[in-house]
Amino acid sequence: MIAEVEPFHAIAVSRIAHDMEAAGASVIHMEFGQPSTGAPAKAIALAHAVLDSEAMGYWESVALKDRIALSYAENYGVTVEREQVILTCGASPAFVMALSCLFRPGARIALARPGYVAYRNSLKAMYLEPVEMDCGPAERFQVTAAAVEALDPVPDGLIVASPANPTGTIIEPAELAAIAEVCRRKGIKVISDEIYHGLSYGAKAASMLEHLPDAVIVNSFSKYFSMAGWRLGWLVVPASLIDAARARMGSLFLTPPVLAQKAGLMAFECRDELDGHVATYARNRAILLEALPPMGLGRIAPPDGAFYIYADASEFTDNSLALCEELLRDTGVATAPGIDFDPVNGKRFIRFSFAVSTPLVEEAMRRIGPWFAARRKG
Amino acid sequence: MIAEVEPFHAIAVSRIAHDMEAAGASVIHMEFGQPSTGAPAKAIALAHAVLDSEAMGYWESVALKDRIALSYAENYGVTVEREQVILTCGASPAFVMALSCLFRPGARIALARPGYVAYRNSLKAMYLEPVEMDCGPAERFQVTAAAVEALDPVPDGLIVASPANPTGTIIEPAELAAIAEVCRRKGIKVISDEIYHGLSYGAKAASMLEHLPDAVIVNSFSKYFSMAGWRLGWLVVPASLIDAARARMGSLFLTPPVLAQKAGLMAFECRDELDGHVATYARNRAILLEALPPMGLGRIAPPDGAFYIYADASEFTDNSLALCEELLRDTGVATAPGIDFDPVNGKRFIRFSFAVSTPLVEEAMRRIGPWFAARRKG
Repeated sequence: MIAEVEPFHAIAVSRIAHDMEAAGASVIHMEFGQPSTGAPAKAIALAHAVLDSEAMGYWESVALKDRIALSYAENYGVTVEREQVILTCGASPAFVMALSCLFRPGARIALARPGYVAYRNSLKAMYLEPVEMDCGPAERFQVTAAAVEALDPVPDGLIVASPANPTGTIIEPAELAAIAEVCRRKGIKVISDEIYHGLSYGAKAASMLEHLPDAVIVNSFSKYFSMAGWRLGWLVVPASLIDAARARMGSLFLTPPVLAQKAGLMAFECRDELDGHVATYARNRAILLEALPPMGLGRIAPPDGAFYIYADASEFTDNSLALCEELLRDTGVATAPGIDFDPVNGKRFIRFSFAVSTPLVEEAMRRIGPWFAARRKG
Repeated sequence: MIAEVEPFHAIAVSRIAHDMEAAGASVIHMEFGQPSTGAPAKAIALAHAVLDSEAMGYWESVALKDRIALSYAENYGVTVEREQVILTCGASPAFVMALSCLFRPGARIALARPGYVAYRNSLKAMYLEPVEMDCGPAERFQVTAAAVEALDPVPDGLIVASPANPTGTIIEPAELAAIAEVCRRKGIKVISDEIYHGLSYGAKAASMLEHLPDAVIVNSFSKYFSMAGWRLGWLVVPASLIDAARARMGSLFLTPPVLAQKAGLMAFECRDELDGHVATYARNRAILLEALPPMGLGRIAPPDGAFYIYADASEFTDNSLALCEELLRDTGVATAPGIDFDPVNGKRFIRFSFAVSTPLVEEAMRRIGPWFAARRKG
């Protein structure tokens, strides 16, 4: 038997949403973690020019690797060489690449629960064993150095995500350094998913590379750069893994889309436009943080970054998928059920993505307020 | 230790070629299997329109799945349902998906040697065991039903590629049916790589689906459709594997590029332009088949399809990588060494890709003719 891999339940919600829209209903899509904005204008303009001038074969942009490497000096003060950057078709295959470069089947990989469903699924699909660490409000829903230290047996690997999906929580700098120290001391290999870097509402997130030069970093153009459908991501690997990573990329994936590589390089020159999206997310986040508690959704994971609110809905349900479906059918507001992120406690949580326009967030709150009010207990 | 995966030696050749070009030399690129033409004009025009009108998030084109499904009725007379079509970021991840949906680590997968290097590498990276079948001129460099029948122990899977890379050889219809029969009888799961379908110079290739409805089919827009750098491919899976494939796609890869999906659908409407490329390849093939034998490169695998000539260069070398490098440095003609496709006998072979313009093929023959003539023995 091949490994069993779970579907995303949010996709089931989204299918209902699209059926409703096809039937004429007004739906506000807060179920997926993707910007509703497109790529920056200058990146699109460049894509037009490339479409008219290049045949676009298998190709890797050296200039893009250089630009990404430079961003580590700019953002984190760490040195990354061009050859350490491996361009991929998005963060998902980058994560597969990271696992393939570090582990053999049977390896045990620790990760936070709640966490992004694809971590658990990709581990299972690759016959790696997820070691889920139950992370609740006391731990800000994140792994801690103490929790990693306490793992017995010592795992082969650890996945860190800061800011995290579904919570948005950022691991504080001293804690991140302490996690790195434990992993170095115990020989635990670290994959750091930094896909939500650039999206934070207080202190910005540190890179695991600041503390652990041998960490493998996953990132992409899908979130801050607002280019999800262009399918472009990257890995940073230590020098010792460059050959393994390049050989795997060549056989398992070949090259990323040419147009995305060209446009992605230009997107680095579009900070003003992209930071404008972050300002929108900051406004949206504030609206949600004000509107949700009076509805009975006040126990919220600290949304330090990303564009998510992970809210405890236990006053209303112990079946988050049913709640999301009912909420959608009644109000046209689509959200993601917590069971996608936490098969144990997620039945009581729902996730709002606020990567939509501010008027839509306001409209969503107007629609769901009365709905939750009508269901409050007592 | 993680699995060892070999690099493509053709990439080393290509790097020398690019260094030569940067230094001002004229290089003719016959080392990689990619069209030098771009996407069809109408597909590019549509891409311009999409760039200006859509934000492009995570998305799968239902219309494209329908169109691909329909093409199986048109081309092969077999019925494929929309949900059997899984869209991927090219054939490489489609092949990874196929392996992941069918096999667990340790499974033994038979395949022809010579064959596309990524088959062997992807098998190794996924801890599957390649069972290489030595296929020489007597077998037209292809697996045969008799050879599959004779495998002891019976393998778990078989990879079929027709037309094949590096040879272009097509498995004849009766033989393909016989291979299917052996695999059905013995419970051998079949992956059929049909990426070169549409590119043939005599009888066209049959699909394994005509003989074996449970086969998993790999295909892409990179060859016939001339859209390699757009990164779009697909799988056809039997109904029993749809859930496994969809769940894997969602976790391991997410979705293919939006622009490629839109343009790829339009490319189905551009048969005239695309068949024009095939006519060019036919002319190029004829030029090579006339020019190479007098040079001492007359033992050529039957180039029924694809855009390759796989030539026995044993009169000149037992180190095909060294031959390719020397030929490139002296003449500016880049080719791929046989060792990429066959670690045993490939040291005596080189592969020409003729997916370039006819004037370039003619120029390449003018350059290499005297070079080989000067090296002929006796």
